[in-house]
Amino acid sequence: MTSEVTEGSVGIVEPRKIRIDSPLILDCGRLFMWHDLMVETYGTLNAARSNAVLICHALSGDHHAAGVHSADDRKPGWWDNCIGPGKPIDTDRFFVVSLNNLGGCRGSTGPNSIAPETGRQWGPDFPLLTVRDWVRSQALLADKLGITQWAAIVGGSLGGMQVMQWAVDLPRRVRHAVVIASAPQISAQNIAFNEIARQAILSDPDFHGGRYYDHNAVPARGLRLARMLGHITYLSDAAMRAKFGNDLKAPQPSFNFDVEFEVESYLRYQGESFVDRFDANTYLIMTKALDYFDPARDYDDSLVDAFRQAQARFLVVAFSSDWRFSPARSREIVKALVDAGRDVSYALIESALGHDDFLMPLPDYHRVLRGYLSRVADEVGA
Amino acid sequence: MTSEVTEGSVGIVEPRKIRIDSPLILDCGRLFMWHDLMVETYGTLNAARSNAVLICHALSGDHHAAGVHSADDRKPGWWDNCIGPGKPIDTDRFFVVSLNNLGGCRGSTGPNSIAPETGRQWGPDFPLLTVRDWVRSQALLADKLGITQWAAIVGGSLGGMQVMQWAVDLPRRVRHAVVIASAPQISAQNIAFNEIARQAILSDPDFHGGRYYDHNAVPARGLRLARMLGHITYLSDAAMRAKFGNDLKAPQPSFNFDVEFEVESYLRYQGESFVDRFDANTYLIMTKALDYFDPARDYDDSLVDAFRQAQARFLVVAFSSDWRFSPARSREIVKALVDAGRDVSYALIESALGHDDFLMPLPDYHRVLRGYLSRVADEVGA
Repeated sequence: MTSEVTEGSVGIVEPRKIRIDSPLILDCGRLFMWHDLMVETYGTLNAARSNAVLICHALSGDHHAAGVHSADDRKPGWWDNCIGPGKPIDTDRFFVVSLNNLGGCRGSTGPNSIAPETGRQWGPDFPLLTVRDWVRSQALLADKLGITQWAAIVGGSLGGMQVMQWAVDLPRRVRHAVVIASAPQISAQNIAFNEIARQAILSDPDFHGGRYYDHNAVPARGLRLARMLGHITYLSDAAMRAKFGNDLKAPQPSFNFDVEFEVESYLRYQGESFVDRFDANTYLIMTKALDYFDPARDYDDSLVDAFRQAQARFLVVAFSSDWRFSPARSREIVKALVDAGRDVSYALIESALGHDDFLMPLPDYHRVLRGYLSRVADEVGA
Repeated sequence: MTSEVTEGSVGIVEPRKIRIDSPLILDCGRLFMWHDLMVETYGTLNAARSNAVLICHALSGDHHAAGVHSADDRKPGWWDNCIGPGKPIDTDRFFVVSLNNLGGCRGSTGPNSIAPETGRQWGPDFPLLTVRDWVRSQALLADKLGITQWAAIVGGSLGGMQVMQWAVDLPRRVRHAVVIASAPQISAQNIAFNEIARQAILSDPDFHGGRYYDHNAVPARGLRLARMLGHITYLSDAAMRAKFGNDLKAPQPSFNFDVEFEVESYLRYQGESFVDRFDANTYLIMTKALDYFDPARDYDDSLVDAFRQAQARFLVVAFSSDWRFSPARSREIVKALVDAGRDVSYALIESALGHDDFLMPLPDYHRVLRGYLSRVADEVGA
């Protein structure tokens, strides 16, 4: 999702690679003695260090959430419509931190970076991760930046899961938790979509057991299919119909496998462009982290007991047209928070597009975020 | 979908290959001078030839709708729970005809049969088909069987589309049209699913441009993915959750790509077994016929004008949990029929499973079919 650079952009930003030199023990039992995280920050940390906001990205996101990388960069960060001076996540008041998660493919330590032990790319030797691992890694980053407590942690979709996990695992470090278009655990249907995406990649002959880098190959077929499939779940049926229609482009069928419907060219384009910018091993890691997410698992499968650990106040936002993580899933989160005695606000945004709406500048949505976060800013003296 | 052989089975049936030796001109402009159809019949054609019922199959169906092929055959036909003596489609009263459509892979002329001109399998030289082509082919079969008018034509999903096309194209030959879990045209989302399935097959290196027979290969990876994807759309989210849950099979993640969730083993099994019984070129043909289906296309995009051609009375059945062809799509059919002044009954069946419910012996569903079809039988003196 991209948007034009608008009024109130943070302008030109420079990503930094930050070396986290504290050991990180993963849920799988493996250990990183150090790891790198690609980070962008927007705004200024105040003297009290109380105005920091962490942005957690979703499946295919990265550190580049706002601004541009050069004066002639036409493509701003993925959430530029929401982060900037005067925007809902207001960089005149907040110090905003955005990172590419561990396991990513945009400069953070991940399967396509060089493993120090072998001197070649990690590939399939890179461990599978959990949302909890990301929270641990992000906490080490917070230490490094001197941030004891986040004024707010904000994330949509898989990003919202990181927000919840933060609130449960490190309750004193999260003042406000903003969980957008997310779910307390993914559904069997979500797992099914992820599994097909993984099988598409794993069964691609160019995958070479994950060592495609060594073969100068890319499992493009598999990654393309995985991305096409993802896009179906990001849009509502009605939005697809409105956006593409379902009539042939020509008056009559062509009787071959060329593009005949608008939605076909859209999907082929999305699949193709993803191959150029994303790493297949990272895609596998991300979908597995999604499948594994279950904050209740360590609390006898009680989400209420998990949320009893939290101290943050919550804002939960859902979109009416989202069928990937439907409003019903957000209400499960809200109900568990209420039952756990937590302070929670819930907003259901009327929307048309589907899951992708969490990236869109819908007026009601931005009004909710702006209102909530401006009170947070007041509260922390930002 | 299978079910145990139950009371009221038609017993052992023998498929027949019927040579249709009249020329068939296809929508793509190509011509078959003759073609073969694999056919099963159940029950007896009455002297007036008025009690014939045609069954139209869906995407992966075939001629074997009821009964078994031998005494120790454990797997009855795909709609055995509905077709048989005393069953909703009552073979004590009706003469039921079930065929494998042209382009199929179960004995009818299709991409895996031998092209007379070349002496080798058709493969990609087999023409893409439309629902209208199937209706033409089925009409030639009716001629061959001496059936001037069907008492009823019955079909679910893609089968229901054939029923509608019959009623529009050959109005005098259809007395009753039973359209189950279908749609007047597929949605952009449906096309998107089909397109991904096709791309999975077309991009499989073992596809060899459709000439995999000549390479002694099978595009198993692609066909497997296509089938897995199909299965997601056949089940409701709630049914998947009820059937498989979304908890790990083990207490903790395994951190590898082995099966960790029930739904993963289900999908892998469904994908695997499909490869053994279905032809990839046929799958491509079937999904394209689905995409092309649009009875309104020749009537200035007016479904009402299309249905004005029909003379049949209609029964339209939808299932509450079906999201592939939702009840809203069935209501579009009903509304257009009403606006066209046609006689139509509509039943919305409360169900849990999803699209697959049209194959299930749900009591309300079978009661509706039984009631409707017994009145049809009375009417035609069966």
